[in-house]
Amino acid sequence: MAIRYGIIGTGALGGFYGGMLARKGHEVHFLFRSDFEHVHRHGLKVDSVNGNFHLPEVNAYPSVSRMPVCDVILVCLKTTGNHLLPELIKPLLHPGTVVVLLQNGLGLEETLSARLPGVQLAGGLAFICSNKIGPGHIHHLDYGKLIIGSHNVLDPEILKQVAEDFLEVGVHAELSGDLRFARWQKLVWNVPFNGMTVVLNTTTDRLIADESARALAYEMMLEVIRGANQCGVPLKESLAQQMIDMTIKMKPYAPSMKLDYDFRRPMEIEYIYSKPIETALKAGFVMHKISVLEKQLRFIQANH
Amino acid sequence: MAIRYGIIGTGALGGFYGGMLARKGHEVHFLFRSDFEHVHRHGLKVDSVNGNFHLPEVNAYPSVSRMPVCDVILVCLKTTGNHLLPELIKPLLHPGTVVVLLQNGLGLEETLSARLPGVQLAGGLAFICSNKIGPGHIHHLDYGKLIIGSHNVLDPEILKQVAEDFLEVGVHAELSGDLRFARWQKLVWNVPFNGMTVVLNTTTDRLIADESARALAYEMMLEVIRGANQCGVPLKESLAQQMIDMTIKMKPYAPSMKLDYDFRRPMEIEYIYSKPIETALKAGFVMHKISVLEKQLRFIQANH
Repeated sequence: MAIRYGIIGTGALGGFYGGMLARKGHEVHFLFRSDFEHVHRHGLKVDSVNGNFHLPEVNAYPSVSRMPVCDVILVCLKTTGNHLLPELIKPLLHPGTVVVLLQNGLGLEETLSARLPGVQLAGGLAFICSNKIGPGHIHHLDYGKLIIGSHNVLDPEILKQVAEDFLEVGVHAELSGDLRFARWQKLVWNVPFNGMTVVLNTTTDRLIADESARALAYEMMLEVIRGANQCGVPLKESLAQQMIDMTIKMKPYAPSMKLDYDFRRPMEIEYIYSKPIETALKAGFVMHKISVLEKQLRFIQANH
Repeated sequence: MAIRYGIIGTGALGGFYGGMLARKGHEVHFLFRSDFEHVHRHGLKVDSVNGNFHLPEVNAYPSVSRMPVCDVILVCLKTTGNHLLPELIKPLLHPGTVVVLLQNGLGLEETLSARLPGVQLAGGLAFICSNKIGPGHIHHLDYGKLIIGSHNVLDPEILKQVAEDFLEVGVHAELSGDLRFARWQKLVWNVPFNGMTVVLNTTTDRLIADESARALAYEMMLEVIRGANQCGVPLKESLAQQMIDMTIKMKPYAPSMKLDYDFRRPMEIEYIYSKPIETALKAGFVMHKISVLEKQLRFIQANH
């Protein structure tokens, strides 16, 4: 059975992953906001490090009311819009629909589940450098791996098929048996580097080259790992040094929160900072250092 | 016996306090750097909230080699120049000289004492808003209280006389019996507001009006107080809320570190951040939050 995909939020992520599926003939329905008219006329363009492509005709919609129900909904919005999700998702549901939150942070599925009880949810983590550079125009710079894990999916087969679909179209997709582990693991890098590039108005290469900033990033990584451990998620402390070493080798990079800051968009403070801090605290662990960054970001958000 | 004063560093502080003494006929010898020529010709000007004055002729020197030995040396340099102090102070010493470090931070007297063993040291804390606005031109905006305490002064009478001299010329000077207490107490305000105005590139009024920044300032104040307590300095935790309430009532203010940042001068990170962090750590207390700020400031110092 072929999966019918819905993409909520066709930007840097949704445009790339949905485009990769549509390009090879999968049925994909894309929700757009401001780019709808442009894509309706000119299609979707993806400039990818693995080869550029152009989809002259895609199933593009300006609102969910016109979209069909879908088997798998990939939510590719920024988490700053998650309060809108119930209204965006409900019209696309059939009894077997699985919603995959392709978003960073913690507590996403729990928060949405409380508002959409009974709906099958999964989470996805995208390890990718991709930006939207114009209307319906995505620039995929590097990487692309996708890790997907179930939150409360009843039949594991559907996630397997999603992973197979992605592999078939050239996206390195993996299933994780432990979504919480995968989410915490990604936070180990995201927590120090998203916030610090914003607060210090810089890029990852300058942070990692500076002794103090590198030490601080390492200490915050340890705080994430120890918070995770306290919540029963067995991340190893050695991961912190691995992430530091990896970042030393990375090209200069502005994480998504830095781009949000630069373009004066809301930042994903809630799910990348506040939820992990709250979750660890409930388990008895105080994230002292990370809570400094969280409060600094909230000040910047309110005063930028 | 009249005290002969030497001022090392005639800027916002040295120009004001030394000027107040000289104005009423005390013997004061001022060390200048770049302003020497200007003051030699035009004298020293102080625009003060308590009344402007101009000293057409002051004992101005371009280097310590021409200065006479002094009874009391008021060190009014930024602590970022403290590695120069032994060479600046030695030529001015006689057996009874007392050196008063009118500087913020912790460990100042200990560090200097190791390089000038046997020299009598005291510390001073200036509660003042004062800026240098031109060559030999000081603008005293508000306040002015001076707290002075002995580090290893043999005869307490000389500090009493210094305080009396200041009171006589209109400076509210007090002696503290516990210099460490006074230094830690001043850090309770300086630590959060100096660093946060720099890292968040703002002023005290905007920080204190923001819920997150205010909470963070309060938490850092508590960290200073608890660090002090662990070092045997009995600051009360209630001081944190008092300082917050006081800051709410203050006019918009850029602390000295913010001015240093704005004018691309070195910041006083060592004695306001690193020494308190080290000192508390030796006593077994980890200043988690303040060490985040310290490392951010070090990054900014190196990359600004």
